[in-house]
Amino acid sequence: MKSRAAVAWGAGQPLSMEMVDVMPPQYGEVRIRMIATGVCHTDAFTLSGDDPEGIFPAILGHEGGGIVESVGEGVTSVQVGDHVIPLYTPECGECKFCQSGKTNLCQKIRETQGKGLMPDGTTRFSIDGQPIYHYMGTSTFSEYTVLPEISLAKINPEAPLEEVCLLGCGVTTGMGAVTNTADVQPGDTVAVFGLGGIGLSAIIGAQMAGAGRIIAIDINETKFDLARKLGATDCVNPKKYEKPIHEVIVDMTDGGVDFSFECIGNVHIMRSALECCHKGWGESVIIGVAGAGQEISTRPFQLVTGRVWKGSAFGGVKGRSELPEYVERYMKGEFRLDDFITHTMSLDKINDAFDLMHEGKSIRTVIHFDQ
Amino acid sequence: MKSRAAVAWGAGQPLSMEMVDVMPPQYGEVRIRMIATGVCHTDAFTLSGDDPEGIFPAILGHEGGGIVESVGEGVTSVQVGDHVIPLYTPECGECKFCQSGKTNLCQKIRETQGKGLMPDGTTRFSIDGQPIYHYMGTSTFSEYTVLPEISLAKINPEAPLEEVCLLGCGVTTGMGAVTNTADVQPGDTVAVFGLGGIGLSAIIGAQMAGAGRIIAIDINETKFDLARKLGATDCVNPKKYEKPIHEVIVDMTDGGVDFSFECIGNVHIMRSALECCHKGWGESVIIGVAGAGQEISTRPFQLVTGRVWKGSAFGGVKGRSELPEYVERYMKGEFRLDDFITHTMSLDKINDAFDLMHEGKSIRTVIHFDQ
Repeated sequence: MKSRAAVAWGAGQPLSMEMVDVMPPQYGEVRIRMIATGVCHTDAFTLSGDDPEGIFPAILGHEGGGIVESVGEGVTSVQVGDHVIPLYTPECGECKFCQSGKTNLCQKIRETQGKGLMPDGTTRFSIDGQPIYHYMGTSTFSEYTVLPEISLAKINPEAPLEEVCLLGCGVTTGMGAVTNTADVQPGDTVAVFGLGGIGLSAIIGAQMAGAGRIIAIDINETKFDLARKLGATDCVNPKKYEKPIHEVIVDMTDGGVDFSFECIGNVHIMRSALECCHKGWGESVIIGVAGAGQEISTRPFQLVTGRVWKGSAFGGVKGRSELPEYVERYMKGEFRLDDFITHTMSLDKINDAFDLMHEGKSIRTVIHFDQ
Repeated sequence: MKSRAAVAWGAGQPLSMEMVDVMPPQYGEVRIRMIATGVCHTDAFTLSGDDPEGIFPAILGHEGGGIVESVGEGVTSVQVGDHVIPLYTPECGECKFCQSGKTNLCQKIRETQGKGLMPDGTTRFSIDGQPIYHYMGTSTFSEYTVLPEISLAKINPEAPLEEVCLLGCGVTTGMGAVTNTADVQPGDTVAVFGLGGIGLSAIIGAQMAGAGRIIAIDINETKFDLARKLGATDCVNPKKYEKPIHEVIVDMTDGGVDFSFECIGNVHIMRSALECCHKGWGESVIIGVAGAGQEISTRPFQLVTGRVWKGSAFGGVKGRSELPEYVERYMKGEFRLDDFITHTMSLDKINDAFDLMHEGKSIRTVIHFDQ
């Protein structure tokens, strides 16, 4: 079938609106009609050419919400009409990683997904016979897309896909890091470095976990109002201080925070986030993705004296077994998503969404496919 | 009173046997008669001059076992004749750290202890009126020494002090890191880097925890027999491989180990220990103490994909409330200490103990004060 899609022909170029041929789903695959998709910094990172694993031409996008249009042979867990969130971290339930119960990093299709292909080693997208690659196994910047069954979370059909699509990446990543990876407890002191979509979601997670003090850190003070609305008790601009930011936080908190979250992808801030943790028990969680080849460092004394350094991908959330529960919690009103959605637009305006992001003017732009 | 003691007059010099004046214990302090003390690499590190916090002249030693000779005013938890192990990590029960329940790093007397002084800011040792400093709050290389009450673990008087003195540092550090800091579970795969006293103790801890596979790593193959006796299932000499050691371990273990322990103090090995951990859940614990100013580094991707980097001091063991239980477990025969004791000698031979250590010929030399 033909599908409207925003195609990335090469690094550094604007996306191009195209009519793409989308093949029917093969064995174990599902074709979905996208209703909405967020535009995330990771899409911009790959489009910029800085992502060493970026492959072109491809259909980017990984934060979507859609409805099952057709299913391939052997598919049993979803059927036509089901509402689904695409998962760039699948959950096969069978691999060593899924079986361990200790991680959400299913490795079943990692190799082909990393090459922009479906698990059988081919692509479902083409234009005039030229293959177009998948991206993160999701390619949500297309009205129709094909995914492996294991890469779909079936969710409550009453949930508004134009909002819960954000649970496909940023919001879950931030909230999950706080509650799954870090296990923040009531009364804990938390520092969040970087107030983009993930950092703000980490604040929501900390607030829901009952953190007693939530310190939001960013050099862009225009983010502070929303941070406070979501639960931040203190907002700190590192540029306002002579001292390194980790010392500022240690002084503010009588020795350091219980938990910190790096939501930027800057290896220097990752160090600050660790070193602002309290001696004896503070834990720092890296969420941001650093540039290729960059390294973190610290004195080992920081760890020997009780700090813990860890990381989180997709908030440690197992997509098929746990993400539907996040949707239910949203439906119960435990948290809001509209605060994150600063802009909505149609697919053909998607390059504007990247511009807004680069200019620091948006938290999330959501593309509505029916516009 | 007069006491035989081995005094370190300055960095890089042999210890000197002296008759030292030891004052009576002051308020909250206890004077003990040392029965035995291990000689640890940390003593050698400070004596070498590489320890930036080393203070001279001082009485070194921190791995002792003794008997209470007299108590100062206000002391309630021990009395004359009690058998005790000196603690370089005290447990006051009152400071923020003790109260947290999350760490063994009591900070009550950290400042004075770091300066070689008792909590009131003075020293109990002198020679002809010249003050001699304390070391790690313990100074076990003296027949009589004075410690704060909070720096003493009262133990079963039937335990042989000539063996359980090793629980005052190395053995507890290694075992505790495995069972307290890391929580190794039955069947887990464990890698131990460095087969000194701490590494061998980590192997004991892993064996007691029921680890399914224990990989011992050292470039000195003479350590392998004892490692195997204590529970190592595989012994690896990194020099025998072309590949980096972390890749060797990953290949041996189908993706990496569940837990690794760095027991050397080499920042490059610390990185290898992290990177040989299994994606998704592997945890690496730094036990070794690196040289001043040295830093660890890695790609943040290692953490974002689920590895955890932490550290451990004194095995995370709370000295007064938990160390006596280690002595009881030893008394029940759950582990042996004699394997560690390669040499015993009298105090006046203590420089030989340092020579044996530097030549890699000893695991532990225990000084017997009654010889």
